[in-house]
Amino acid sequence: MSAGFVSLVGAGPGHPDYLTLKAAQRLAEADVVFHDALVSTEVCALATRALRINVGKRAGRAQTPQPEIDRLLIEAARQGMRVVRLKGGDPFVFGRGGEEALALQSAGVPFEIVPGVTTAISAPGLAGIPVTHRGISPGFVVINGSDLATVERVLASIVPGLLTLVMLMAIGRRAAIAGQLIAHGWSAAMPAAMVFGAGTPEMWVWRASLAALAASSVPETSAAGTIVIGEVAALPLDVINGVSVSQETA
Amino acid sequence: MSAGFVSLVGAGPGHPDYLTLKAAQRLAEADVVFHDALVSTEVCALATRALRINVGKRAGRAQTPQPEIDRLLIEAARQGMRVVRLKGGDPFVFGRGGEEALALQSAGVPFEIVPGVTTAISAPGLAGIPVTHRGISPGFVVINGSDLATVERVLASIVPGLLTLVMLMAIGRRAAIAGQLIAHGWSAAMPAAMVFGAGTPEMWVWRASLAALAASSVPETSAAGTIVIGEVAALPLDVINGVSVSQETA
Repeated sequence: MSAGFVSLVGAGPGHPDYLTLKAAQRLAEADVVFHDALVSTEVCALATRALRINVGKRAGRAQTPQPEIDRLLIEAARQGMRVVRLKGGDPFVFGRGGEEALALQSAGVPFEIVPGVTTAISAPGLAGIPVTHRGISPGFVVINGSDLATVERVLASIVPGLLTLVMLMAIGRRAAIAGQLIAHGWSAAMPAAMVFGAGTPEMWVWRASLAALAASSVPETSAAGTIVIGEVAALPLDVINGVSVSQETA
Repeated sequence: MSAGFVSLVGAGPGHPDYLTLKAAQRLAEADVVFHDALVSTEVCALATRALRINVGKRAGRAQTPQPEIDRLLIEAARQGMRVVRLKGGDPFVFGRGGEEALALQSAGVPFEIVPGVTTAISAPGLAGIPVTHRGISPGFVVINGSDLATVERVLASIVPGLLTLVMLMAIGRRAAIAGQLIAHGWSAAMPAAMVFGAGTPEMWVWRASLAALAASSVPETSAAGTIVIGEVAALPLDVINGVSVSQETA
């Protein structure tokens, strides 16, 4: 390919095992990779030819502003590079993939979407929690916990208890969010789970209730976990994937 | 591995490009693959050593009953086979993966979950429709359209318009479901889209409104599309992934 090209690629939950064949191919061919901080070193290492640039938030350093990321993608493509924009999970699940795609389209830069395995489904799944289950959960809701006002608006729009609720980027605000849920009529006894390091040897799972979630303590390093609220979080699928799952049943 | 083992594997939206590295590896190693009808021939063909058995619904033939599928998985594993249970999308999104995992656990058969790229996110994504988008959609709901009573129960539990609504297995009942949505207060002018053959060269997209969805016609062969309802369905991301996307803007 002589003209520059951008692939907006989902990296999956973390481990290279859960990368798609197309994502692995795009990484192997890339001249430059712009990746989020949460994308694992092992996945980035598959881009053997590429310059690798972290544009995500990392301890002590602000995230590269979105307009600057857009500009970097466009400039690199205009210089004829094969560019990979690599995001944790799927690029269209809270990944700003839509905004970047619109920016590329406006600039006339050819691009593609390479969907990934979303953490919202795979983190619970790898922990033995199916987001849907016949007779228990006829569907699920996925929301972003990074802004409490948005969480409030979303919680006001769903009746408690029927659909499984999956929250990303919510670990640091779990006490406040558990309070919001209970205020919106969710039972304090509703099963709740947190999944950390899904798909890695360091994976661990916390399972208890919504009330216990508010009071739970997790290591400082575990900011990137996934929260699941719903009856499916109590399904007795305990030991899977050869991973030792430590459970606190507070 | 001398003892039998079952991998519950998600096959992604269809094309082998969107299979995970782990799924491809499990298929290559498998002795027997039990697959759903919707899993593509190209994906099944990666199981080069394996006996391949279709246990899904296919024209003129009923699906293998769930207890029979459970029994087949257990029996094959007990005979020392490396078994892959291959499902379209992700095994825990309306895939009965949870039921099969519980059956395997009860039988004492070791198993693992290999998450896949869910069609619920990747079909819209490949069509240029992000299920979340800053300022437009703070989250999304995924439901199964195969049973109208369940759809009714779910629609009664969500306030219209805030979250993107993705429906799988709903194409054949889209007129009735569009009616249910409008009855529950969704605007008839709300953007709606249908995506067929996501990730394949035959991919096509229909985009219009909820009112038009009810009156839309699609080919008989297109039963397996994905429906998206929400403002994101009107985002002007038109031509991506080198696929010719034919749009009816009814």
